[in-house]
Amino acid sequence: MSLKNSGYALAITVLIYCTSCTTQTENTNTNSLPETNAPLPSWKETAPRNAIITYVSEVTDTSSSNYIPVADRIATFDNDGTLWSEQPIYFQFFFALDRVKAMAPDHPEWKNKQPFKAVLENNMGELMKQGEKGLLQIVMATHAGTTTDEFESLVSQWIATAKHPTKDKLYTELVFQPMLELLDYLRENEFKVFIVSGGGIEFMRPWTERVYHIPKDQVVGSSVKTQYDYNNGKPFIKRLAELDLMDDKEGKPVGINRYIGRKPVFVAGNSDGDLQMMRWADSNTLKTFKLYVHHTDSVREWAYDRQSHIGTFDKGFDEAKEKGWTIVDMKEDWNVVYLFEKQ
Amino acid sequence: MSLKNSGYALAITVLIYCTSCTTQTENTNTNSLPETNAPLPSWKETAPRNAIITYVSEVTDTSSSNYIPVADRIATFDNDGTLWSEQPIYFQFFFALDRVKAMAPDHPEWKNKQPFKAVLENNMGELMKQGEKGLLQIVMATHAGTTTDEFESLVSQWIATAKHPTKDKLYTELVFQPMLELLDYLRENEFKVFIVSGGGIEFMRPWTERVYHIPKDQVVGSSVKTQYDYNNGKPFIKRLAELDLMDDKEGKPVGINRYIGRKPVFVAGNSDGDLQMMRWADSNTLKTFKLYVHHTDSVREWAYDRQSHIGTFDKGFDEAKEKGWTIVDMKEDWNVVYLFEKQ
Repeated sequence: MSLKNSGYALAITVLIYCTSCTTQTENTNTNSLPETNAPLPSWKETAPRNAIITYVSEVTDTSSSNYIPVADRIATFDNDGTLWSEQPIYFQFFFALDRVKAMAPDHPEWKNKQPFKAVLENNMGELMKQGEKGLLQIVMATHAGTTTDEFESLVSQWIATAKHPTKDKLYTELVFQPMLELLDYLRENEFKVFIVSGGGIEFMRPWTERVYHIPKDQVVGSSVKTQYDYNNGKPFIKRLAELDLMDDKEGKPVGINRYIGRKPVFVAGNSDGDLQMMRWADSNTLKTFKLYVHHTDSVREWAYDRQSHIGTFDKGFDEAKEKGWTIVDMKEDWNVVYLFEKQ
Repeated sequence: MSLKNSGYALAITVLIYCTSCTTQTENTNTNSLPETNAPLPSWKETAPRNAIITYVSEVTDTSSSNYIPVADRIATFDNDGTLWSEQPIYFQFFFALDRVKAMAPDHPEWKNKQPFKAVLENNMGELMKQGEKGLLQIVMATHAGTTTDEFESLVSQWIATAKHPTKDKLYTELVFQPMLELLDYLRENEFKVFIVSGGGIEFMRPWTERVYHIPKDQVVGSSVKTQYDYNNGKPFIKRLAELDLMDDKEGKPVGINRYIGRKPVFVAGNSDGDLQMMRWADSNTLKTFKLYVHHTDSVREWAYDRQSHIGTFDKGFDEAKEKGWTIVDMKEDWNVVYLFEKQ
């Protein structure tokens, strides 16, 4: 993910999108695909699908000069906008807003204290005026102060029940079916698949195993500092209100080095926030594959790129074209976006 | 690993051991074991081996009430003193001393500057006088300032050639054969095995795959902060002279949470530095196994526990006995310590 001008832009986006979300059109595509054993069935037989299959076939062929040993088959995927949608705002921010409302009874002072007052009154104009500082207050108030166990439980409950405001679907239903198939295809070819996201590591881990089949220890994300306490024989780890890793832009190669310890050979992203990860992979001496998802489908999903405040795809777009990286046109290259379209 | 009174004690240890290392006795055991398909062949048929096999059999039995799903089969192993030896000082410190000598031509000022002067003159008495501050200077001078690629290359070259001062073996030959068999046995039973060590994560990763069959992304250790730079199309990550995670004592549960995201069910350590990791696992709702390696073999390895400055085993010893955790007596419970004994 990438956030132009950081929190302030996000606040503007909250205002613009959340006050105009009735204009969103829900997808009515009932396309049903034939069952097939060929890989990537939700991908049209266009250039990106062919390029992926050609690459994977080559680097897993022991007779190829570009053969990659299994231990080096590291694939890293961005999450927001790459594996699931990210409009009108990052889904994690909906979680934060819902947490403010759920926590409000224990914080009577929030009724008269910004930025919480604006959230509780659904006053997005006022929330916008609170700027970056206000947004940071919301994130820290809702993402710190609990134990790691408590936070996992909160996320698990929310992700199982909360629905997207315009799509009226669970957030985990808004994952991209073609990308799920790509994860499977890579794993079948002995790639080890990681998420490398600007989203919170502990916001993702409670559900990535179920939804993406990616285990918790293969999730890299932004994090807060933590502290261990023995608590008279009942140890816990507390989440502190201090940033540890901001796993976006320059933070992505840093996160990859910290958690994975080797350069990926296959990378997927959708925004300028993934550009440093793309370049990091591109500097690998092994043959690599760089895939950018371009949001071009205003009917089934959303259409946005250079001018968007969420998932800005501008410098990355230029560099991908210049260097011949694969750009997936969601509208043209995917038979389906979400699995529920087929039902 | 555990370091009593931190660096100062280490300096004393450097002095005591490095000036008296001729008293070390090299192992002459030529015990050769029969080839067998039974698990853990280098373990004697004593209580620890039986307890391990009973535990693994139970938690992988789907009909057992203590059955553990594969995703939860997380095993975490300390490294220094648990998977390989750690006397007379942590092997990583030998690397640091060798680095000072290798870097000296580029640092003519070190000839007259402590603590480097003491290292270059092999004057351990003087090095001791430099205290904790001096040791930290040595570690930072030798572990920071390079790129991650350069550091990996330095470690790889050193680990392939440097020999232990008294055992006259490569450091990677000083790994415990029974523990290698335990790693294999757990993996055969679909446990995912991690190292969780106070040692440097980037000191371990270059060789853990080859020696332990543990991939780089399953190594958790102490780390320095890092910084990404694009460098005109040649990106690199620089290692900074600032501590990121001290993965020892309270840092071990923090590291486990950061890198793995779930509590382990099987833990192995050898010192008080592993006690918090033991307690963290012990608080798991799933059935767990806590294993302490007790260094009792002054002939084949070393004998030390409560009073040792390296690998202090005192509070952990008491708690293990009180709570019925498994304590491996290296002398009594292992047929061999090192593989070369069999050759």
